[in-house]
Amino acid sequence: MIYPSKLIEDAVNEVSKLPGIGKKTAFRLVLHLLKEQSTATESLSSALLSLRKNITYCKECHNIADDHLCNICNNPRRDPSILCIVEDTRDVMAIENTHQYNGIYHVLGGIISPLQGIGPSDLKIDALTRRIPGSTIKEVILALSPTMEGDTTAFYITKKIKDFNVKISTISRGIPVGGELEYTDEITLGRSITARTTYEH
Amino acid sequence: MIYPSKLIEDAVNEVSKLPGIGKKTAFRLVLHLLKEQSTATESLSSALLSLRKNITYCKECHNIADDHLCNICNNPRRDPSILCIVEDTRDVMAIENTHQYNGIYHVLGGIISPLQGIGPSDLKIDALTRRIPGSTIKEVILALSPTMEGDTTAFYITKKIKDFNVKISTISRGIPVGGELEYTDEITLGRSITARTTYEH
Repeated sequence: MIYPSKLIEDAVNEVSKLPGIGKKTAFRLVLHLLKEQSTATESLSSALLSLRKNITYCKECHNIADDHLCNICNNPRRDPSILCIVEDTRDVMAIENTHQYNGIYHVLGGIISPLQGIGPSDLKIDALTRRIPGSTIKEVILALSPTMEGDTTAFYITKKIKDFNVKISTISRGIPVGGELEYTDEITLGRSITARTTYEH
Repeated sequence: MIYPSKLIEDAVNEVSKLPGIGKKTAFRLVLHLLKEQSTATESLSSALLSLRKNITYCKECHNIADDHLCNICNNPRRDPSILCIVEDTRDVMAIENTHQYNGIYHVLGGIISPLQGIGPSDLKIDALTRRIPGSTIKEVILALSPTMEGDTTAFYITKKIKDFNVKISTISRGIPVGGELEYTDEITLGRSITARTTYEH
């Protein structure tokens, strides 16, 4: 596309680096900012810059936090004997929204992905192996996405922590609630049979 | 949604002010910037700020330009007797992409929309009425979207320029090329019949 101005082109290129935003959407967003008062662009920029500069992470679980401890690690009502390992903050929020979990978290900050050049040393796995020994943690739940990367990460972590005296579990895979059995892929359906739940009666 | 940090919340609020970006997408974009190097956020911000600060508009057609005249107004090969009136830069680019038009443009910078509080004085309509008299312009093409706002704007402009000695035309409405006749709405189909094109033979 030939843009009417170099400034527009630079801005479009920068905005379209964001995930899920193509050149066309980026151009629309850039034109929107041009139509708005310049204060709109200024407050957007300053919010992003201030976020990037001042963000802090919980020193216990490595979740994003305003203080040196996050609200969850800081909450005496949470059960410190169960530790849930997740990829990032969004997963913490998703699990918190279920209101089914009262333990604490460990945020890896990503997932092992050779394609994207992310190895174990880029994640908070060493921090995890330092965190467990001598702690109150009795169970570690691996709550990673059931993808190739998620499974690789889970396998790696399991190997690293299997000698600690903790139970290791993973969130169950199966047919989503509301899903249709006949449209479920074979792997999921197979797992949902082998990992079937016994009715308690 | 409860965000893990006030800084995140502020950034999400700012990003979700952009059109078509909801809170969830905004949160994803913000987390992406946190994962990237801080230079990514800095170059994004500076591109947007520099755009907003240094952008200039062509003094003839009011299109976005790097100089005081845009590439089209500055091009001696363009036909200065035909003037195409469009809403914004994107429409200029769309028409340029057709390679069917060799005249010049007039960019209104918006469209009359009482709902959004945009009146004629917010647009470059006065500039248009000053531009036509004494110029080489012989025909004015109204290339506005066939919506309520577009039609209102076209009607207003027609009233303003009808006393100048110029031919006024509008882009044709009809069935899009590749469209199915039976699925076309009544108004479009009706217009495509009344404004039918005679075969030249």
